[in-house]
Parts: sequence; structure tokens; C-alpha cells
Amino acid sequence: MSETKKVAVIGFGNIGSGVVKALYEKGVTGLELVKVVDIDLEKKRPVKIPRKMLSAHWQTVVNDPKIDIIIELIGGIEPANTILTRAIEKGKDIVTANKMLLAQDGEHIFSLAAATGRKVGFRASFVGCHSLIHEFQQVGTASKKFRRIYAILNGTSNYILSTMTNDDKTFREALKEAQDKGLAESNPSDDIDGIDTANKIRILLSLITNTYCKVPDFHVEGIRDVIPQDIQYAGELGYAIKLIGAIEQIGDSVAVGVHPALMPQGSLLGSLQGAYNGTELEDEYGVISGLVAPGAGVYPTTDAVIKDLIDIAEGRPVPMPTSSEPLVLGSTEMAERRYYLRFSVDNQSGVLAQITNIFWKYNISISGVIQKEPVSSKFVPVVMTTYKAKEKDIQAAIRDVDKLKVIKAPTRLIRILSANT
Amino acid sequence: MSETKKVAVIGFGNIGSGVVKALYEKGVTGLELVKVVDIDLEKKRPVKIPRKMLSAHWQTVVNDPKIDIIIELIGGIEPANTILTRAIEKGKDIVTANKMLLAQDGEHIFSLAAATGRKVGFRASFVGCHSLIHEFQQVGTASKKFRRIYAILNGTSNYILSTMTNDDKTFREALKEAQDKGLAESNPSDDIDGIDTANKIRILLSLITNTYCKVPDFHVEGIRDVIPQDIQYAGELGYAIKLIGAIEQIGDSVAVGVHPALMPQGSLLGSLQGAYNGTELEDEYGVISGLVAPGAGVYPTTDAVIKDLIDIAEGRPVPMPTSSEPLVLGSTEMAERRYYLRFSVDNQSGVLAQITNIFWKYNISISGVIQKEPVSSKFVPVVMTTYKAKEKDIQAAIRDVDKLKVIKAPTRLIRILSANT
Repeated sequence: MSETKKVAVIGFGNIGSGVVKALYEKGVTGLELVKVVDIDLEKKRPVKIPRKMLSAHWQTVVNDPKIDIIIELIGGIEPANTILTRAIEKGKDIVTANKMLLAQDGEHIFSLAAATGRKVGFRASFVGCHSLIHEFQQVGTASKKFRRIYAILNGTSNYILSTMTNDDKTFREALKEAQDKGLAESNPSDDIDGIDTANKIRILLSLITNTYCKVPDFHVEGIRDVIPQDIQYAGELGYAIKLIGAIEQIGDSVAVGVHPALMPQGSLLGSLQGAYNGTELEDEYGVISGLVAPGAGVYPTTDAVIKDLIDIAEGRPVPMPTSSEPLVLGSTEMAERRYYLRFSVDNQSGVLAQITNIFWKYNISISGVIQKEPVSSKFVPVVMTTYKAKEKDIQAAIRDVDKLKVIKAPTRLIRILSANT
Repeated sequence: MSETKKVAVIGFGNIGSGVVKALYEKGVTGLELVKVVDIDLEKKRPVKIPRKMLSAHWQTVVNDPKIDIIIELIGGIEPANTILTRAIEKGKDIVTANKMLLAQDGEHIFSLAAATGRKVGFRASFVGCHSLIHEFQQVGTASKKFRRIYAILNGTSNYILSTMTNDDKTFREALKEAQDKGLAESNPSDDIDGIDTANKIRILLSLITNTYCKVPDFHVEGIRDVIPQDIQYAGELGYAIKLIGAIEQIGDSVAVGVHPALMPQGSLLGSLQGAYNGTELEDEYGVISGLVAPGAGVYPTTDAVIKDLIDIAEGRPVPMPTSSEPLVLGSTEMAERRYYLRFSVDNQSGVLAQITNIFWKYNISISGVIQKEPVSSKFVPVVMTTYKAKEKDIQAAIRDVDKLKVIKAPTRLIRILSANT
């Protein structure tokens, strides 16, 4: 057994308390907690430590040469960024749960760590899928390659969509319920606009492509515009609407997107309820595996932090990007998939013919149509699903359709993602 | 990078070809394939290697001091047992996919490895769940503890049960279909009688309890007696019938069983279709995670073998049991759970009262009853589900019920397993 590593925790909130509990109360072989930093020294916490282990100043631990590993659990960009930078410069390994920082400024942290030979443990920044995603990190030539990864990475959005689906609620009602239960912030934008999902996708991409360079921008669309009508039509067609982060191998490049998608109801992701995370992953041989796990919470996050600490303490490789090769994303334009389309049409004859003619021109085949008897006199939803078509063709077709006089509102497109089609 | 390890494969069948392909055609950093052994040197295989790398005699590689790691892929007890024993005695590390051998004679292999400091990689013997189960191996004090593990570990049984459920087939019809598709052997007993599941459960138990001693016998019940009627009633109640291997913490001990169970339709295991494996796992904090993955097949098994090889080559710890502490299993008698019961009763009044009186005596509450209008004149199925009750009470109650004159056939009991109840 190697010598005991001295560890300091910065940030004594919920997660911090969980980590302190694990390290101090339960104890982990090879690790000794020596200091806990928080600006609030008086707050009641679910774990008791001697007063002398507490400090209000992060500089105390970052400048202490006896400390080997700094665990950053305060979140946000500053002072987290300064703390981690200084800690690495001082020769310390770091463990962090800070997904916002890594997604936005990970290049800086990882390149500094690579240059100085330090380790950065960041499993806690993608709690819901780390045990599956690690298999795809490029290690030697034995790493697995993937064809696609579809993931539900934001528990709040999944809770809202599940509630809309199961309890026939509107987006606003379901959001309100999530806020009342403490599952959504009063400013819920990060969760419902796909920002949190996109941050996690950026971190995963860094890991599986082994580059710490900033991930270029990609299409990010949240769930604000998901309406009960679409959920209901999707249900009739055998699908559930989910907020999906998708990483796909298209030709020689990797294409990425975050958007609502129709997932088959019986599938791992299509059946995922409530505030859970889920990952469905197809490898280079077409082998599909899936993982369902809580994406947040004290215990799962603590567990991820402890795993990183043990890897560092035992001298094992810590999964982290090590290359400075810039990441070039492929375009999703050439992605071939199925689509759900809802047209808002004037209630007059010949409309269907006008739409299908345009689709015919772009070589897009219709696999299903739902057109119900109109309730109001002239504003009718027509729902179509397509066979596989290229994203660029479907986008072009919709542009043409939306110019038709009989189309009364922009056509709603939702991608259909299915591991087997 | 440590020096390259020399590797030999014994058994050049489907899995062997996959492993040879990965090591020889694709190449894995740090590993060099030097010899492949099979009794059949002429057979066409999907990978070509030079004739001089082939041998018909396993002694050639086991006695070769230059070879560091032996990969055993022939299966069965002998000569696999002799090969692995000799290889360890000769100072070699081993990797094996042989679940029958490990389940039945693992004590011998692991104790020899522990005594001589050799490593035994055996991820390939539980392909469908290794990435999740590893987290529960006892490493230091940081290992996670579990409350329960429910797993579908036999793809053939799950295929048969899925087919019976989705296509309204009998057990015999579904088995025939599985055999026609090559998913079941002509002698399917290992799969359908729960033997394969029990072997995997034995291997998992060794790993998560960290003892290589033989696992004592436990209740093993297969799917031969699952009838369409039970599948249909279970469906009406919101459940699917699955063959489950269950490892549960009951009080201070671990209780184990393999049997059909009612799983909620929307749950990870309840919705698992076809020849897949699935694992649902609740840790000491009540955090539930789940994994779905193929339980067999060339690529997943090859992948598991390569993972073990890399761990060994890079000097990382290989998950394997290291303690000679005998494993004492707890009794499932004290397990508290819900039950599905189907009584075969005479069609006369007062029957329900007689049954419920007995249940009342044992303090067992009924949560639901399905009694349909009788089709034939006097033989009526009555289905009940119970609230949580102790296994020993339910067994005693059924013994009493089955003595009633109005009961015309032994009562069918199927356990209801749900992570949340």
C-alpha cells in the first residue's frame, strides 16, 4: 500500500458534508482528511469535525505543502477556477464536481494538469453515467469506439416531461410542480433550456475524444416548446418525448446535439421516469448497453468523488483528457434518421397533397400520418412521421412547406431517435 | 509503460477468434499474442494467424516460461481446470470466461492464485453486469455496500418469457422458437432451470463478499412452470414475469435466490425484452442504479477479456476474491416482500373466506384479488397479491391453504420484487 494521501475539502455544503462524512467518519484506506474550507464556519452540518480542521480561507490549504489532493465542491466559475489553477501549480492533484467550470474553461485546467503531470478527477461532474462512459475513454488501442450515445442527463427536465406525460400537465404546470418539490431552481433555464445537458455533453466529449480543447458550439434546444399535443401524438405512435444529448459518429466525424426527441416507449430511455439519468450506448460492433442512475444527489456524487480519490491515491490512471488536439465536430446535416412533424394547416382539401409533393421532391418517404377530424373550423394539426431521411433534406423540405399559403404556423420538427432504426 | 506481456489463447472457437482478432489484428498496447491452442487446427476461422502460432497441445503454452498470461476459452470443467491450475502453478496470470468452472470449483482456482500472488481475470464470466458489479467489490473501506441486487442474467430465459408475454405463446412454443433461433441448446436445462443464473450469482457473490469459498446451496427455480395464465394475470396487475437472481441484505446476512418474479412493467428489469441481461442495484443509501447489456456474444465477451488483460498488463488490481473466509448465507425466511398467489379453487361459495381467514391468522394482508367468472364449471383460479409479509409466514399460510378441501391443486406462489416497495 502506498503512503497515505492528505486531502482537503473546499466547500462544506451538501456534497461537501457527504464527502467529509465518508472520509472522516467512515474513513477510506490511504486517504486522510486534514482540512475543510468554507466561508460559513457556523452553519449546522450533518457531520461533526474538530473546529481546528475548519478554515474560512482556501489559501490555507492550497498553499499548504503537506496537502496532496484538493477537492473542490463550491461550484461556479470563481473562485473555483483560481483555486484549482493555484492547486495544480502548487503540485496538487484535484478532484472536482464543477461541471460548469469544466465545460466552459476545462481547456485551461486540463492543459495545466497535462503540462505539470497532475491528475484531475471529475467523475462527479457526470455522476449519472460515469461507470459506462469510462469504457470509451481512449486508452491505448484497446479503447472501445462508439457509434452513438443517447443520454438523458438532466433529471429536472426528465421529471417535467414525465409529469407532462403521465399526469396530462402543461409545461408550466409541470415546471411549477418541479419547483415546489425542489427539483427545479426558481430560474430554471440551465435545466430546461438544455444548458446543463450541453455542459455534460461537452465534458463527455472531452473524455471520449481525449482532447481537452474547448468543444465547438452545437445545436442546443430545450423543452420549453414541448406541448401536451406533441406528447399525446408521440404516445399514440408508441414514443415518449425526452430531452436527449446525442453524440453520434457520422462518417469520419462526431456530431453532437441536445434537443427533445421521440424515444420508443419500451426502450431504456423512453421508459425512464422522474429525475433519473440514463445512457444508451452503441459500440463499434453494434452492441448496445444502457445505464440508469441518479444524476445528482449527495450519495451518488460523494461516491464519484471517493472513486476519483482512490484512483489518485492508489496511483491508478484517472480518466481525463490528455491531448491538445482541437476537436472538430461534424455536421448533423448528413445524419440520417426518422422525424416527427406536426403541421398547422388550413382546413381545406388538397393540403396533404401539397405537403407530400414537397417531400416527394426531397425524396423523403412518409411512414405514418395522423389527421384527426378538426375541432375548430380551420386550424388543424396534421402529424407525419418519416422514414429515414437526411437532416439537411428534412430541413429544406420544412422550409418549403412553411412557405405554403395553407400552413398557418411554423412546422414542429422533433427527431425520432432509436438505437435500432 | 511497463514491458509487453506475452499472451496465449487456449480455445480458438467463436470467443477465441474474437480475442485473437483484437490482440493480433487490431493490437492492444502492452500485449503480444504469441500462441493459440485448439485441438482443431484445420477449421476455418474469421481471423487468420500464421501456422506457427497454432498448437494442438495446451501443455506447449502452459510450460512455456516466456508466456505471462493464459486466456482459457474452452469452457467446461476438464481440461480447463487442469490447464488453469498448472498455469497458476507455473507463475502465470490467467483470464477465463469459464463460469461453470468458477462457480463449481472457483475456490480451488482463487485460493491457489491468492497463495501464489497470481491474478485471475474473470469479467468474461459475467459479461452482462461487470461494469456495475465491480463497484461493489470490497476494496479497502471505500467499497460500496448494497441492499439488494436483482438481476436478469440468462438471455435465453428472458427471450422465452418475453416471447410468451408479447406473442401469447406457451412455454413449449417459446422454447421451440428460441431453439430454432439458436438462442437455446437442444438440452436447454442450464438456461431454463436457473442453473446458469445460479452459477453467475455464485460468481458475483464471491466477488462482492470477497470470499473465494464455495457458495452454499440456495433456492433455485427455473421457468418451466411459468404458464400463460400467470403472465396474463401479472400483466393485468402491472407486472411482467422475469427470471431473477436476487442477492439481498437481510439483517446482518446476505440471502440469495433464483426464481421467477413479478417485476413492475415500467421498471428497468420489468421492461427488459429479448436476450438481454439487466441488473438493478440498490446501495446502502437507497440509491438505485441499473445496467442493461448483452449477457453473451463474441464482442461483449471479447471486450471483457481484453479489459482483464489490460488491468493485468498495467499492474492494476484485478477484481477477484482474496479471502478464505467461508461464506454463510442468511435465510430468505425473514425476507419481507409482496407475493402473487394463484389458488385453484372449487367453484363454491365461502372459499374466499376460508383463504382469507388463514391469511388473517398469519397476519398477512391482501392487497388485491382477481376472481373472474368461471369458464368451466368447477375449477376456478383466484389470484391474490399480498402486502409485504415474511417469507416464512407466507409459506406456512400456503401450506395451511393447500390442506383445505376446496383447494384443487397446489397454490402457485411468485414473489413480487420491486426496488421501491
